[in-house]
Amino acid sequence: MGVEWKEHILDMLEARRYKELKEELENNMYPVDLADLMEGFSQKQLVMVFRLLAKEEAAETFSYMDSDLRELLINGLTDSELEEIMEEMYLDDTVDVLEEMPANVVDRLLMATDEETRQQINQLLQYPEDSAGSVMNVDYIALRKEMTVAESILKIRQVGLNRETIYTCYVTEKRKLIGSVDVKELLTTSESKKIEEIMDTNMLYGRTTDDQEDVAGIIRKYGLIALPIVDHEMCMVGIVTVDDAMLVLQEEATEDISIMAGVNPSEESYFGTTVVEHVKSRLPWLLFLMLSATVTQMIMNSYEAALAVMPQLAGFIPMLTGTGGNCGSQSSTLVIRGLTVGEIEFHDLFKVIWKEIRIAVCISLVLSVVNGIRIVLMGQGDMLMALTIGLTMACTVVIAKVVGCTLPLVAKKVGLDPAVMATPLISTLVDISTISVYFAIVSTVFQL
Amino acid sequence: MGVEWKEHILDMLEARRYKELKEELENNMYPVDLADLMEGFSQKQLVMVFRLLAKEEAAETFSYMDSDLRELLINGLTDSELEEIMEEMYLDDTVDVLEEMPANVVDRLLMATDEETRQQINQLLQYPEDSAGSVMNVDYIALRKEMTVAESILKIRQVGLNRETIYTCYVTEKRKLIGSVDVKELLTTSESKKIEEIMDTNMLYGRTTDDQEDVAGIIRKYGLIALPIVDHEMCMVGIVTVDDAMLVLQEEATEDISIMAGVNPSEESYFGTTVVEHVKSRLPWLLFLMLSATVTQMIMNSYEAALAVMPQLAGFIPMLTGTGGNCGSQSSTLVIRGLTVGEIEFHDLFKVIWKEIRIAVCISLVLSVVNGIRIVLMGQGDMLMALTIGLTMACTVVIAKVVGCTLPLVAKKVGLDPAVMATPLISTLVDISTISVYFAIVSTVFQL
Repeated sequence: MGVEWKEHILDMLEARRYKELKEELENNMYPVDLADLMEGFSQKQLVMVFRLLAKEEAAETFSYMDSDLRELLINGLTDSELEEIMEEMYLDDTVDVLEEMPANVVDRLLMATDEETRQQINQLLQYPEDSAGSVMNVDYIALRKEMTVAESILKIRQVGLNRETIYTCYVTEKRKLIGSVDVKELLTTSESKKIEEIMDTNMLYGRTTDDQEDVAGIIRKYGLIALPIVDHEMCMVGIVTVDDAMLVLQEEATEDISIMAGVNPSEESYFGTTVVEHVKSRLPWLLFLMLSATVTQMIMNSYEAALAVMPQLAGFIPMLTGTGGNCGSQSSTLVIRGLTVGEIEFHDLFKVIWKEIRIAVCISLVLSVVNGIRIVLMGQGDMLMALTIGLTMACTVVIAKVVGCTLPLVAKKVGLDPAVMATPLISTLVDISTISVYFAIVSTVFQL
Repeated sequence: MGVEWKEHILDMLEARRYKELKEELENNMYPVDLADLMEGFSQKQLVMVFRLLAKEEAAETFSYMDSDLRELLINGLTDSELEEIMEEMYLDDTVDVLEEMPANVVDRLLMATDEETRQQINQLLQYPEDSAGSVMNVDYIALRKEMTVAESILKIRQVGLNRETIYTCYVTEKRKLIGSVDVKELLTTSESKKIEEIMDTNMLYGRTTDDQEDVAGIIRKYGLIALPIVDHEMCMVGIVTVDDAMLVLQEEATEDISIMAGVNPSEESYFGTTVVEHVKSRLPWLLFLMLSATVTQMIMNSYEAALAVMPQLAGFIPMLTGTGGNCGSQSSTLVIRGLTVGEIEFHDLFKVIWKEIRIAVCISLVLSVVNGIRIVLMGQGDMLMALTIGLTMACTVVIAKVVGCTLPLVAKKVGLDPAVMATPLISTLVDISTISVYFAIVSTVFQL
């Protein structure tokens, strides 16, 4: 899948072999792949392909396209074609599309929807970004507790076709969520049983204001197909489905990884982000960290005299700061991940510190000895130098590990994103402590 | 959920209020949470709680426990109790359990299963670790193309209860996979229609030898509930379900993040890993990187005379190497993530490099100017020094960004894990280039 298919489609368009192309697209192409492939198509090519697709496929492909391509396409379609797409799209996808479009396109899209949908869209748009309300789907199957299994299956048959998922049905009473029933249950239970006899009343649910990541985490943890979402009065307003949960978790992982590397996260893909936007998202941390390194420099400058006497002392600095930074980022990364997947919490702070100290002691022993042997063998210093560097190394490793594991936990406690406390910041802080410890030790040992 | 519940359960056990506890567990507790809570229970307490659970809940709780706790429990249960649990467990969970247990426990567990299951288990154990075969479930619903919708629903009713998921049924002919039908489709189609009329023949599938991450990625990308798995003859052998796919993706993200921080990944949790295991997983990279830093030291030692004359030159080093490392890790991290989510591929190499060069030029301009102003204002050097450091900074940023984006792509191409090319390794390589460039420039400018 990829380049060959793209060229194949363009060739077919060129040759006006529309009927063949239509069949091929129907039989061999998934909407998510087609949306990918059309990256780089001209407006005319886009519109031509779109007109070949069945309504449902067209709507799905549309929802997978990136925002620039989508805008190009919208401007090429007639109002009635747009109306058809809007009718076929699921409401949560429509809201996603609207959030990314410029105002004039949004107006045109809203014109293309009917009054009822427009009201629902407006309500969905009011939920805070990244909340469960903003990713939920408002289409689901609601049953009443007095219904029989046979009646329930009949209801699914009647309304099911337009629902994004029918695999879990929800039992409501005056709009309040009171239970859930798996379709599996419906299919494997006697048809005359009442819903209230088989419904699960101890069901999990989320609230519209919950963070989308928390809701997705519940779906993953409990292996659900969908999670019902209720408002502050326990009235059922929608569901978050497992496919959306997977995308949320992927986005959040990308966001965490970006922050951990000192990049402000963006919703756009790597190539979808312009050079200027990349610069904007990377520069703040680089500037901040560069200026923080001034502290290290000031400490070193105060030992200028010592360096003039023993310039070989400078040679050990990149190795010491490098090792310190690596030790610190190992600890901070493991703790940040532990916080993300819910294994580590703030009240584990001392347990974590104690563990890291024991690990640090073992690691510093090995590193100091190996490095000491190396120094002597390579003739970079005598036994005294080897011991001095070894002592500095041991202090550095312990400090780095303790700082590395403490900061993410403290960040979490005070409501910051722990991922901010990853490699770049830890390295800079550890640099400062390493240099201080190093010169304090060497100036004492060598009486500089 | 958490500490209070744990104490509550222990209090109830102490007070011998078994009937009440049994009810509470049934109504308010999910197996995955219960498995978490029991961490730290004694063998006697574990066994007592287990005997209160319904068979199905007991098996599910068992499958969520961590390996130490599970071993403790197994040793406390009678053979017939063990047999009941093994009967209730899904086969993929059984295999996971067996893979983690010591040999004597495995023997006892296998004794507790019937002959047919034992054969299936042995077959599953033969698939390579992390392959689709090793995570798939062998229970699924197979239909024949001549069946009607009504007959199909009847079949689901008859066998459905023991299947982990029934939401997609698979159509087979002489065991070969020829199509799939959603239960949704079955429920919303006329009962007299034949399966071959409604089945989807253009379905996605995986192979037993595929990497579990690839299979999970397909499930995420196409929003599937399950993916059928076939052997080399296209015979259907199992399914991978969306709940397992989510866990695979979480594990793989943790693995990537660990590797990116220079920690060899482990399957165990942070607290589940002993101090010695933590040391073992962190030490190799630290040792390798520490010894690599020897190169930096050798370069610096060759400029000892220069440092003796201008010892203030050393003070700029941590800032330069720090900025270089941060720039490099920003680029490598974004590229590694792009590779993971499938946005960037090797053939994008030059596109990526060109983008990074433009970004690097913008960033280096800003950093050099800000740093130059800082140097002059803080009296750390004159204009010439500011210009020299600015020039070094610009070279460092460009080299760091190019190295940072190139290495992960090259690693992928030659079959290595791109995550290995993250912050720690990039920092060390960038240190070497930064120091070389720095001393080359200063020794020319200041004629040292």
